[in-house]
Amino acid sequence: MAQDNDDGFYMRRCVELARKAIGCTSPNPMVGCVIVKDGKIVGEGFHPKAGQPHAEVFALRDAGDLAENATAYVSLEPCNHYGRTPPCTEALIKAKVIKVVVGMVDPNPIVALKGVDKLRDAGIDVSVGVEEELCKRLNEAYIHQMLTGNPFLTLRYSLSVNGNVLDQLGKGVKEPGGYYSQLLQEYDAVILSPTLLDDKFSIPASQEPGAKQPLWILTARTSHPPIKIPGLSTEETAKMIIFTDKKMDVQQETVLQGIETVVMDQINLKAILEYCKRQGFCSVLLDVRGNFGDIEELLKEGIEQNLLQKIVVEVLPIWHGSNGESLLVAINSIDKRLKVKKLQSRTSNENVVLEAYL
Amino acid sequence: MAQDNDDGFYMRRCVELARKAIGCTSPNPMVGCVIVKDGKIVGEGFHPKAGQPHAEVFALRDAGDLAENATAYVSLEPCNHYGRTPPCTEALIKAKVIKVVVGMVDPNPIVALKGVDKLRDAGIDVSVGVEEELCKRLNEAYIHQMLTGNPFLTLRYSLSVNGNVLDQLGKGVKEPGGYYSQLLQEYDAVILSPTLLDDKFSIPASQEPGAKQPLWILTARTSHPPIKIPGLSTEETAKMIIFTDKKMDVQQETVLQGIETVVMDQINLKAILEYCKRQGFCSVLLDVRGNFGDIEELLKEGIEQNLLQKIVVEVLPIWHGSNGESLLVAINSIDKRLKVKKLQSRTSNENVVLEAYL
Repeated sequence: MAQDNDDGFYMRRCVELARKAIGCTSPNPMVGCVIVKDGKIVGEGFHPKAGQPHAEVFALRDAGDLAENATAYVSLEPCNHYGRTPPCTEALIKAKVIKVVVGMVDPNPIVALKGVDKLRDAGIDVSVGVEEELCKRLNEAYIHQMLTGNPFLTLRYSLSVNGNVLDQLGKGVKEPGGYYSQLLQEYDAVILSPTLLDDKFSIPASQEPGAKQPLWILTARTSHPPIKIPGLSTEETAKMIIFTDKKMDVQQETVLQGIETVVMDQINLKAILEYCKRQGFCSVLLDVRGNFGDIEELLKEGIEQNLLQKIVVEVLPIWHGSNGESLLVAINSIDKRLKVKKLQSRTSNENVVLEAYL
Repeated sequence: MAQDNDDGFYMRRCVELARKAIGCTSPNPMVGCVIVKDGKIVGEGFHPKAGQPHAEVFALRDAGDLAENATAYVSLEPCNHYGRTPPCTEALIKAKVIKVVVGMVDPNPIVALKGVDKLRDAGIDVSVGVEEELCKRLNEAYIHQMLTGNPFLTLRYSLSVNGNVLDQLGKGVKEPGGYYSQLLQEYDAVILSPTLLDDKFSIPASQEPGAKQPLWILTARTSHPPIKIPGLSTEETAKMIIFTDKKMDVQQETVLQGIETVVMDQINLKAILEYCKRQGFCSVLLDVRGNFGDIEELLKEGIEQNLLQKIVVEVLPIWHGSNGESLLVAINSIDKRLKVKKLQSRTSNENVVLEAYL
């Protein structure tokens, strides 16, 4: 049994609960809530999906009468406005909790602290900022979009242990539980080279019931060889969009039948991000695999114009000499020096995944 | 309180205890021992230094009469021969322990399982192979030397997050507790480029009372500019040795006064390892920093001729474009493909440290 004053413990549980809805809450944030009385968890809940009740409502329902004089832990400041559901502040006041511990305040500066103030006005003791870093990470894309209006952009690539860029994913990372399949659940859109769509390509199957699939954004210049996408189902092509720089030629049109196509003057990352923004996407993944001009240029634009928020680097258990081959050298050679922040690592199957922020 | 049958828990404690003597036990292995009775630890010990009693002796002393009918956990098979101390099997039998749990058998195939057999002959219940991987890692260099007769060779280098080789160490890693200062404690010798010995160079101070300092092995060809080693104390030069390929010229001799010098026909890694072997060294670190021919050639030899057992890669929180500069490209370009094993990561200050085996 954890101590009653072990706020960090309960807040980490809130985040754990919140993550059960990964990929399901967009455009809402993920939120978890725990009700604690006499050092025991008496209620738990999380926000499962936009339009459904918030985490606090589920946790209070779970606690029932035990919520009275209990402490509520919630990873994000309770809302204080009528949206598709009534304000959570009201629910907490009505349930007569004695204390509310908040992971982080609402990232929207216009409404920030209004929920906290409302609870305090009702005589409830409120603390703010417990496991704040963890709570912010949980909804990093949502927070970025809320503050800037732009989608959160992450660059992903693979390295060998000796620092060469690889065009492959490590074993197992696309399987359920692998970091790559988790990324696909977390991001609203994935930009990748259409030349990857060969016989070996397949859109990973849905991981969890209700989990969203990202939109696959492919870039194709008419100056390039036609894109071959063999064996894709209608269901798969429906999740794809192609950005091209001129009207596609007949051969491509045939191959790409059924895939939505956006024609631009010039393919560039900013324009793709602008499109994602208009779609209401919170998060975009630039997945660099394969040695293809389009992606390298998007990557350069991202680095040089500071469009990236995060990098995810997969290190494979391989020593790989470059041996004069055409590797994806842009990752190594783009002339830019940056300090990255909060470098962290974890393992995924036999690989290591690094994460850092720009 | 851990469960009486939670063997892994107690074995991990043994390893934790053993590591208290890191850098002090060579040429002996590090060993930890815990005596458990009725689900409680009643005695703990570790082998502090060659020539001093083994872990079991300290743990049994600590337990006193409580050792009777207790279970002894020990990270390495108890010895069954008279060396500088009497056999630990005898001490365990005399103390009337009822059970012995062994992390791993003696790596020396000639004596392996003799300790276990002796205990079993005395009617003691023995299990073998609890947290074996962890116990093997604890003494990986010792085990390698025991099995092959050769020192354990580890390659270390630094990468930026985009895979470029850097000539620097990350912030804080040389401080006590940083991974680099721990490496220096674990390794008997460190090979590095003498051109690193500039004004900024200093041999890190001893971390723990009694902890050994590695021998610093420098390589210098007479065809290179003379080595400058400003401001080194006599105490520091005493911990260094220089390998050179011809008789040094007068200028170098002046600068290098007080440093032992070994003249070889040709500087190569095998010859340096042979020297280390004759010195009885268990472990050698090839520390690749700075863009200098000698080290690059030793590195190539190590990779191409499969002389390496382990790699340690420090990833710094830096995006660093190569920008046509002379980086240490050999790490990237050596024409060799290898699968590495047991890739793992951990953080050290703001950096990530990867470890893998070849």
